[in-house]
Amino acid sequence: MKAPRGNALIGQSGGPTAVINQSLVGIVEAARASKSIVNVYGALHGIKGVLEGRLIDLGRESKETLEAVARTPCAALRSVRKKPTREECEQALAAFKQHDIRYFFYIGGNDSAETAHVLNEIAVAEGYEVRLFHVPKTIDNDLRVNDHCPGFGSAARFVAQAVMGDNLDNRSLPGIKLDVVMGRNAGWLTAASVLARVHPDDGPHLVYVPEKVFTLEKFIADVDRVYKQHGRCLVALSEGVHGADGKTLVESKEKDSHGNVQLSGSGALGDLLAEEIKQKLGAKLRVRADTFGYLQRSFPGVISPVDAREARAVGRTAVLLATGAKHAHGSVAILRAKEGPYKVTFEHTELRNVAKDTRPMEAGLLKGDNDVDPSFLDYVRPLVGELPKPARLSDYPIR
Amino acid sequence: MKAPRGNALIGQSGGPTAVINQSLVGIVEAARASKSIVNVYGALHGIKGVLEGRLIDLGRESKETLEAVARTPCAALRSVRKKPTREECEQALAAFKQHDIRYFFYIGGNDSAETAHVLNEIAVAEGYEVRLFHVPKTIDNDLRVNDHCPGFGSAARFVAQAVMGDNLDNRSLPGIKLDVVMGRNAGWLTAASVLARVHPDDGPHLVYVPEKVFTLEKFIADVDRVYKQHGRCLVALSEGVHGADGKTLVESKEKDSHGNVQLSGSGALGDLLAEEIKQKLGAKLRVRADTFGYLQRSFPGVISPVDAREARAVGRTAVLLATGAKHAHGSVAILRAKEGPYKVTFEHTELRNVAKDTRPMEAGLLKGDNDVDPSFLDYVRPLVGELPKPARLSDYPIR
Repeated sequence: MKAPRGNALIGQSGGPTAVINQSLVGIVEAARASKSIVNVYGALHGIKGVLEGRLIDLGRESKETLEAVARTPCAALRSVRKKPTREECEQALAAFKQHDIRYFFYIGGNDSAETAHVLNEIAVAEGYEVRLFHVPKTIDNDLRVNDHCPGFGSAARFVAQAVMGDNLDNRSLPGIKLDVVMGRNAGWLTAASVLARVHPDDGPHLVYVPEKVFTLEKFIADVDRVYKQHGRCLVALSEGVHGADGKTLVESKEKDSHGNVQLSGSGALGDLLAEEIKQKLGAKLRVRADTFGYLQRSFPGVISPVDAREARAVGRTAVLLATGAKHAHGSVAILRAKEGPYKVTFEHTELRNVAKDTRPMEAGLLKGDNDVDPSFLDYVRPLVGELPKPARLSDYPIR
Repeated sequence: MKAPRGNALIGQSGGPTAVINQSLVGIVEAARASKSIVNVYGALHGIKGVLEGRLIDLGRESKETLEAVARTPCAALRSVRKKPTREECEQALAAFKQHDIRYFFYIGGNDSAETAHVLNEIAVAEGYEVRLFHVPKTIDNDLRVNDHCPGFGSAARFVAQAVMGDNLDNRSLPGIKLDVVMGRNAGWLTAASVLARVHPDDGPHLVYVPEKVFTLEKFIADVDRVYKQHGRCLVALSEGVHGADGKTLVESKEKDSHGNVQLSGSGALGDLLAEEIKQKLGAKLRVRADTFGYLQRSFPGVISPVDAREARAVGRTAVLLATGAKHAHGSVAILRAKEGPYKVTFEHTELRNVAKDTRPMEAGLLKGDNDVDPSFLDYVRPLVGELPKPARLSDYPIR
């Protein structure tokens, strides 16, 4: 199966990450080195740019610009949240034909893999040869097949450092503190907050993820118990925690005028829980909530070196697979060696294997309904890089 | 005027900073080197620890522990928010006598300077010789006399990086985004968000500080104008912005059961403004708000090297002044050379000069009611250290 000769197009989709441009630059590098690829184009705002004809020439960028872009968080090609209709996919394919696009690389999460999957079906039906590849990216870490996803390590590093600092803050001025972490359906990022624990009494003392049913009564009782034990309580919880009925807390309490509930970019969940704690445990308690928000996916300067390297590698690998003899379409999955020191390989997987459905945390990585299992630490530690080491005074008594 | 011989006691007070332990360690170092100081003690939770007799021996800490603590954010001695009564100040002085405390160093903001001031008055009245020194610390940067305050540079660095990342995020997925920054009475920290601007259309596009009267109508009109111009709008605003009546926005809308309004540790202001924008400019607009919260003062790993050095130096200087022949009490002020490259000196100032009243931003540093003057950039740039350099693609057209 000979690789076609023609132009390559790259798009970025969904929520940004700190290393999504590493993947972009990895693709550009490998595409420029490929004999099968003539020009390397970029679509502005993903599939939207394809439909609107907003394409740019990435082949003319200098190596210096590309390296500087690779170190910059968020989508340099700009992003989009759009699930194209079948008709739009047909229009996109027409644009591919117009520009002789024979390679399309879509950097994104499960929705972007689904878009690539649908585009591929139409291309096959129309007999137009274009190699459609998904390049994984998500701070949510919830793509199937993958051991972990590019973007997660850096976001996990941010969350770990944020909770580490907040634990020190909470120890300085004791009280009950809630930190709301991104993650609508999976708790990976919230679970990474446990990397902040260094001393036995360090927070987060309680960790709540969407994989477990959340009940307000149990939560209040947990907080009360920890506060009585430590004189303070630091909680990390996912924005997507929900009750047995599948409804998030904010959903159960209120809906906006459209019936939608907005989880990110709002302090509603943290404020609601802080209010509940005061009502149940005492109005005079010092209760505060911070919602980490978009900083988790966009903060420059807090980037996991491993994550940056791997994000670059999945981009390069996608081009090698696409221009190779074996696969006309697919995604790149990161697999980890089961034994020995941390080591990964980048493997081909079918688009349908990562499209649509996501991957929650496995039950074995969680402990009870408010903590993670120690095995999760072994899993997550290599992904974030070396963290700051908070130190304490020895509190020697005076003579 | 001969320096007394006896023990030194150190306390930390108020909101933590990323470099407050640099000052602590600066004091411990210089105190251990001083011939006038016998033992160096620490009070846990500031004046509260003095009253409760919770003192520890800092003289026994190893150099390695002290250096590691210096690099760790938040109060290693733990902190307190307490304005002692006159009776409590008398009790504190009794504790000083009991432990032969002849030097007291209180690391904090204007309230801590006030506590030191009152303690000094009582000591003088009782004829007990103790040298009372305030060591400046506040991310709010609002101590009088000082060109800037230890803790501000690192918090400003965090805010600058956070807004830099959020600007990239907002460019990736355009919409209206509000970033709420700490600062109840002064806009220094919010103003530092303009360090995020690199390209001409970079945000923050609008900056609101408590020094200017905030009106909802003008704010909505500003956002509307910027959004129409750029297709997106990034706003940085202080948690303390308020109307002509001096009431904050959240105060005008709602009060808690005690009549108090909590600004930090809540997403209320950002959520309120996001809702107002949707109501006035259109419910379908993508409007989000993040409240940076305690991360601004506690985040490990994002520390200004200049800030860390100066925080150490004010601690050392306080001991040199206290054990010198000239001053029985006072505070250390950071003064900047008026001309030439960035250079500071650490000078003695009277406690009353930094106690109680705070320092808002000077009118000349602000531009209109929604931006800062370029002179503010000259002021703030040397304080934060080198920032990440976000890069863009050139967006070359395809041929």
